[in-house]
Amino acid sequence: MNSTARLETFSDGVFAIAATLLILEIRLPEGGSVTHGLVHAWPSYVAYATSFLTIGIIWVNHHTVLQQIGRVDRTFLFVNVVFLMIVAFSPFPTRVVAEHLRHGSKPAAFAYGLTFTLMAMSYGVMWFYAATRRRLIAEDADQRVVSGISRSFAPGWLIYGAATLSSLISAYLAVALYAAIALFYVVESSVFGRSEGD
Amino acid sequence: MNSTARLETFSDGVFAIAATLLILEIRLPEGGSVTHGLVHAWPSYVAYATSFLTIGIIWVNHHTVLQQIGRVDRTFLFVNVVFLMIVAFSPFPTRVVAEHLRHGSKPAAFAYGLTFTLMAMSYGVMWFYAATRRRLIAEDADQRVVSGISRSFAPGWLIYGAATLSSLISAYLAVALYAAIALFYVVESSVFGRSEGD
Amino acid sequence: MNSTARLETFSDGVFAIAATLLILEIRLPEGGSVTHGLVHAWPSYVAYATSFLTIGIIWVNHHTVLQQIGRVDRTFLFVNVVFLMIVAFSPFPTRVVAEHLRHGSKPAAFAYGLTFTLMAMSYGVMWFYAATRRRLIAEDADQRVVSGISRSFAPGWLIYGAATLSSLISAYLAVALYAAIALFYVVESSVFGRSEGD
Amino acid sequence: MNSTARLETFSDGVFAIAATLLILEIRLPEGGSVTHGLVHAWPSYVAYATSFLTIGIIWVNHHTVLQQIGRVDRTFLFVNVVFLMIVAFSPFPTRVVAEHLRHGSKPAAFAYGLTFTLMAMSYGVMWFYAATRRRLIAEDADQRVVSGISRSFAPGWLIYGAATLSSLISAYLAVALYAAIALFYVVESSVFGRSEGD
Repeated sequence: MNSTARLETFSDGVFAIAATLLILEIRLPEGGSVTHGLVHAWPSYVAYATSFLTIGIIWVNHHTVLQQIGRVDRTFLFVNVVFLMIVAFSPFPTRVVAEHLRHGSKPAAFAYGLTFTLMAMSYGVMWFYAATRRRLIAEDADQRVVSGISRSFAPGWLIYGAATLSSLISAYLAVALYAAIALFYVVESSVFGRSEGD
Repeated sequence: MNSTARLETFSDGVFAIAATLLILEIRLPEGGSVTHGLVHAWPSYVAYATSFLTIGIIWVNHHTVLQQIGRVDRTFLFVNVVFLMIVAFSPFPTRVVAEHLRHGSKPAAFAYGLTFTLMAMSYGVMWFYAATRRRLIAEDADQRVVSGISRSFAPGWLIYGAATLSSLISAYLAVALYAAIALFYVVESSVFGRSEGD
Repeated sequence: MNSTARLETFSDGVFAIAATLLILEIRLPEGGSVTHGLVHAWPSYVAYATSFLTIGIIWVNHHTVLQQIGRVDRTFLFVNVVFLMIVAFSPFPTRVVAEHLRHGSKPAAFAYGLTFTLMAMSYGVMWFYAATRRRLIAEDADQRVVSGISRSFAPGWLIYGAATLSSLISAYLAVALYAAIALFYVVESSVFGRSEGD
Repeated sequence: MNSTARLETFSDGVFAIAATLLILEIRLPEGGSVTHGLVHAWPSYVAYATSFLTIGIIWVNHHTVLQQIGRVDRTFLFVNVVFLMIVAFSPFPTRVVAEHLRHGSKPAAFAYGLTFTLMAMSYGVMWFYAATRRRLIAEDADQRVVSGISRSFAPGWLIYGAATLSSLISAYLAVALYAAIALFYVVESSVFGRSEGD
């Protein structure tokens, strides 16, 4: 197995595990009936779906990104490890939001958004390290595709950063924005991505 | 690694992790002797086995389904992510049933069945998106096999939907039906599937 | 990816996850100093090591077993799912032993051994289904190797069954036997298995 | 799939899962505001990052190591299982440190370092078993690379052993050393490793 294949396997493992562990953080609130608990756990469902879709989008993009990569070096591997460290960290702020969103906790929403922002930044660093002067780009990768990915990566952390700052106004607003960003990427990719073939 | 291979790896990861995480939800009831606890945990064993077999069946079917798929597009990938989100969600209702079935909780049994119904629906959407006008079907896939899968997918969510509604009558009835459906698919596949070769 | 490769991937996933989840069940006992807790958690370490080595041995054997398998059918896949269901169940009795061995709980040791016995039985069923009249054995598999595996599989569940019954006399005896069986397989495979090449 | 490929898959699985499970051990301290909890959980962040980076480094090295291995035997597989058992054990001392570092607990820091020391020792045994008289080294592996790995492996457990002993002086010192070792390996590999190609 070559380097890129093993990186894919390890990354896919972390994505799949982090996404699947999210559910362990959802608990019925103590006390009250089962129905009441199932209904009042709604912030948990929102947090679970937002985090799962975000990791899912990253997984799909990662897939497209790695197709452009021809070789990996140790710097790239370690930036990837830091990126994965942040992805694997996400169940923690997800739980904090799941537990405290119902009280409109701004720090919980801020920590959640900060995690997404750092995730977007480390993902961007990884890509621009590989793409700058086509350092690790495969010989046969189309430069238009590479430039397209660079363009789509650039605003990612700014969008998440702005949404994170909105948590200072309202926790609900911020979480709604995180969910909206995830849904936007899902729809955008589905509708516009189709013509790319892939 | 091509798109289908990575999708298989990620999906297999989620199936394996979701199935294996189920056990973390089984706890000895507080108080009482160890023997008493081991015996009175029976709803946990039923819920564990039902969920594990259901995910196992999906895994085996997914295997057959993906063999017919020649290529994937981003829409297919994202429908798959939503489907996996529901599979990865299943440990939560499994725990709710494991904890509350002993009191005959109908909402717990309903939430459990609703998860299976949504799982069957998203799985069906995924297949019919790929199979309609052979959109993503491999060139060399036998149309009879494709049609056979379509036929077997069609009633899935109706069966789970009906079983879910039975929880309004009795939680025990509903859970018995979920277990029976899982066992039916196991036996049916084992006995009738053998001649297909595979 | 062909059927055997995917089966390997899924099985490896369950083995790796079940083995790795075991650690989540180890907790410092409540109260007392950290040193006291670390020392008095010894039954947890014994249970963790025994379960991890047992799953590790199964993984190594599974590896050898699947090398003899030329094709899989749905019956084989589902027996494998049942076998994996029991492997994935093992963190539960491991925790029960980890928590209750210090009080010499015989039911805990019995449940732990019963899990190993059922694991050995379902593993045996899987193998003998495949090996009988070389139903699923690869064309080029050496019959002496196949027969050798059959001979080594035959006594497995009897050994675990006897060790399980010993828990009726003493929980410590039974757990010592489970650990000894695991160590025996490790040593036996290491020393005698070396000449097989592999 | 050949033996080395399956070993890679299983090992990657354990690395990915152990690294990702670490986050489950991070909890907000009970009581106090969310902000207070997020800030006072800093020992958890340090422990999480240290363990994740350490496992990440091992993963990257393991990758380089296995590229030199031409074949595996059962002894090598079982040493690997013991090594993985220690890697998979690491979330436990990580949690103990995360919970008790804030009180400067020396036993917690000692147990954490002991785990890293044993990890380094078993990793070394694995390598020297394979490398001695090129027992399992691939025909075409460059002896200079093999010797280079041997040289870099030799001091690993001594460095971790010394850092572990420093916990007898101060828990903070020891944990700072574990983090520094991890960062050193990250930087060293990134800067000096680049010229090696891959």
